[in-house]
Amino acid sequence: MALTNASAGDPAKSSLTPYNADFFNLHRGASSLCLFPTATEQVSEILKYCNKEMLAVVPQGGNTGVSGGANPVFDEIIINTSKMNQIRSFNDISGIAVVDAGVILESLDNYLEPLGYTVPLDLGAKGSCQLGGNVSTNAGGLRLMRFGNLHGNVLGLEVVLPDGTILDNLSTLRKDNTGYDLKQLFIGAEGTLGLITGVSLLTPRRPKSVNLAMLALDSFEDIQKAFVMAKEDLSEILSAFEFWDDASMNLVKRVTLPDATYPIEAKSKFYALLETQGSRQEHDQEKLDAYLSRVMEADVAHDGVIAQDAKQIQALWQWRETIPEAIVKSGTAMTYDVSMDVKLLYKMVEDAKKHYNDRGLLGDGNVYYNVIGFGHVGDGNLHIMANIKGFDYSVQKDMDRFVYDWAIKHKGSITAEHGVGVAKVGYMEECKSEPQLRLMRSIKHALDPHGIMNPYKVVPGVLDV
Amino acid sequence: MALTNASAGDPAKSSLTPYNADFFNLHRGASSLCLFPTATEQVSEILKYCNKEMLAVVPQGGNTGVSGGANPVFDEIIINTSKMNQIRSFNDISGIAVVDAGVILESLDNYLEPLGYTVPLDLGAKGSCQLGGNVSTNAGGLRLMRFGNLHGNVLGLEVVLPDGTILDNLSTLRKDNTGYDLKQLFIGAEGTLGLITGVSLLTPRRPKSVNLAMLALDSFEDIQKAFVMAKEDLSEILSAFEFWDDASMNLVKRVTLPDATYPIEAKSKFYALLETQGSRQEHDQEKLDAYLSRVMEADVAHDGVIAQDAKQIQALWQWRETIPEAIVKSGTAMTYDVSMDVKLLYKMVEDAKKHYNDRGLLGDGNVYYNVIGFGHVGDGNLHIMANIKGFDYSVQKDMDRFVYDWAIKHKGSITAEHGVGVAKVGYMEECKSEPQLRLMRSIKHALDPHGIMNPYKVVPGVLDV
Repeated sequence: MALTNASAGDPAKSSLTPYNADFFNLHRGASSLCLFPTATEQVSEILKYCNKEMLAVVPQGGNTGVSGGANPVFDEIIINTSKMNQIRSFNDISGIAVVDAGVILESLDNYLEPLGYTVPLDLGAKGSCQLGGNVSTNAGGLRLMRFGNLHGNVLGLEVVLPDGTILDNLSTLRKDNTGYDLKQLFIGAEGTLGLITGVSLLTPRRPKSVNLAMLALDSFEDIQKAFVMAKEDLSEILSAFEFWDDASMNLVKRVTLPDATYPIEAKSKFYALLETQGSRQEHDQEKLDAYLSRVMEADVAHDGVIAQDAKQIQALWQWRETIPEAIVKSGTAMTYDVSMDVKLLYKMVEDAKKHYNDRGLLGDGNVYYNVIGFGHVGDGNLHIMANIKGFDYSVQKDMDRFVYDWAIKHKGSITAEHGVGVAKVGYMEECKSEPQLRLMRSIKHALDPHGIMNPYKVVPGVLDV
Repeated sequence: MALTNASAGDPAKSSLTPYNADFFNLHRGASSLCLFPTATEQVSEILKYCNKEMLAVVPQGGNTGVSGGANPVFDEIIINTSKMNQIRSFNDISGIAVVDAGVILESLDNYLEPLGYTVPLDLGAKGSCQLGGNVSTNAGGLRLMRFGNLHGNVLGLEVVLPDGTILDNLSTLRKDNTGYDLKQLFIGAEGTLGLITGVSLLTPRRPKSVNLAMLALDSFEDIQKAFVMAKEDLSEILSAFEFWDDASMNLVKRVTLPDATYPIEAKSKFYALLETQGSRQEHDQEKLDAYLSRVMEADVAHDGVIAQDAKQIQALWQWRETIPEAIVKSGTAMTYDVSMDVKLLYKMVEDAKKHYNDRGLLGDGNVYYNVIGFGHVGDGNLHIMANIKGFDYSVQKDMDRFVYDWAIKHKGSITAEHGVGVAKVGYMEECKSEPQLRLMRSIKHALDPHGIMNPYKVVPGVLDV
């Protein structure tokens, strides 16, 4: 098999560097072998061999993950799926697509566009992330509140098990209750139980009409009120409900959009962005107008703006979408992805600020600065971010500790949509009960008794079954 | 613990009969003990004891299943959840309900109604089926095409494992990627891996407007065209798309609705019922009117009728909903629940008719009569039903054989939404590959090493790991 692009030598200097390191260069392994199979049978042969020889492997898709789940920790063999990139079939009556794991999310969406369908998930990384990786990390994204998660939208998977067995579970059926729903095991398992080679995905109709509005609000309580009202008035067409705070807004203005004018003139504590997707422009517009009047009259929002065309839609989205970039450009960035009860969503940010302020560590020029909060209200998903002075490891660990403790204490999740990978495996024993961990280890042990699949990730202490 | 309602004696004559037999009296066990725990801790104690003593148990909810999954096969101990029926919490911002397993589906919906929410599934048995059973059988129903399946809508489960361990996985988070999504294992496992005691469910907003239309069409090809056009025009408000054939229609007229006039005058080969659910009556009506004009002008449907009020909606639904009753009242009933590619959905019925006709066995007064087809087009789910003469077992087996062979040959499912239970476990080796069966057995073995949970169901040969 001529599957490798490089082999021995110093990995740091080799052509393998892009595969050994993640996008942010936070997680970096020293693999000297990256394989690029082009067919499921090749993956099967590779894993059969590795399982027999007890060689550890790490499955890798578009390498856009942020928890180090797709990078080697030491010298694991990388199995990269990017050369498995064929759209196998599409059924234009049921809307079901069957694709290779290496198909890029945006490529599938482009393929579906002229057929009137769209992919049910939308992520910042859509131009390079791959379907197999999306499924392996149970990717969430902006429109989960509308289309639901991948546990509902993935209809079948083709998976190569650690011993090389090809598990063809590539169903195209929406309803099938013949026994355990095996594919579910691999959704979100981050490649620790098998390597996904094929995906069967239910795709919804492409919306004929998209509308976008931005609101200015005084408090996070008002954000919640505006969200409930949006679910009431916009119900089936509401496709995204995002929020961010004034610190995020000002940071974006300063760093990523210095030439743009603020979309809403009067300063406010909070901003919300709501998107509708429907089948009839005038109906959606009418519903959105009525909603906006209602939130303003009820004094929930004190200002608002509706995008008038596709260009304005894009311009408004930028205020939300470039927040992470603004933080990254402002210094050493700490970024977190947590979820919790919507009512508590912003309290974490307030408590973090108070925590560091009380200790005299918060603010411009100080240890912690640019502490901001934003996220997906509809999914209870908060992205709290901050800059820290220099590259002080203890300062980083301190913020990790604060955020994770807070999330666990409030029954939240320390990783809403970014996965555990290697970044958070050390916290799993704190956020999961002993029965949960024991069951995870049993499953891992049952499927991968030699522990060759993506070791050191997701499940702590897998060998202590 | 005073948990039992009866004990020794002849089970057939005891007060246990309703728990030993299923609704259709097709599956019947001889248990002499039915326990009615009122708390999770009691379930834990029961299972701990049964696991130690190697006593087999069968979890039972509303006992509305049709595959014998909730009834004992021999003398297993029945654990009935009906006395665990509290709604634990409801979050009116996120729409997340946490309930005991024994809460009746309709009770939860009644609770949610004044709060503006609804349950995301709708079944004929809603007045007596329980949430725990719905989850255990991965119930589908009429509105799956709109709200998605339970793998997407269930956010967390509390499960008692066979050894008595309480697995508290009762998350109320929409996004949580901390490790394997353990709850997925128990959704659709029909109580063979553990006993579900609590369910966390995402509920959608209750629709403010419901519309219903019936169409008359000439062929199943036209049904498919009408379905695709409905997805185009009604997209986000389409909540059900059902179909049935003329044989179903005439049977209903004769047996269950003799006094009703046909809703559509001219006779037709096929009928479709489409329902919309939305937030604005006039918008939904306008979309539906436009859709109906389009399908008529395109000669896809040749007649149609729209319900004018709630009473007419109910009357139209009856033509679809009483089909099973009409078959059951017409003699010994054979009912099947299969799914396959939408394009093939009705071909199974045509082939079945041809198969029995060629052998001179089809028609009034003959061995097989009233062979009809109807189902959920949106989910590729067909219910094929027939009457057979007398109670001839070989005649029944012959039809089983035909239907299951056909479904397996065409890559369909032999049980779309009714589960495997004991009724279809004998066919599992034909419809699943060896790797799939091996993996199911490994999971069963890892979670239930003594095999006490609902034995003889779902997974064939569980002891041959």
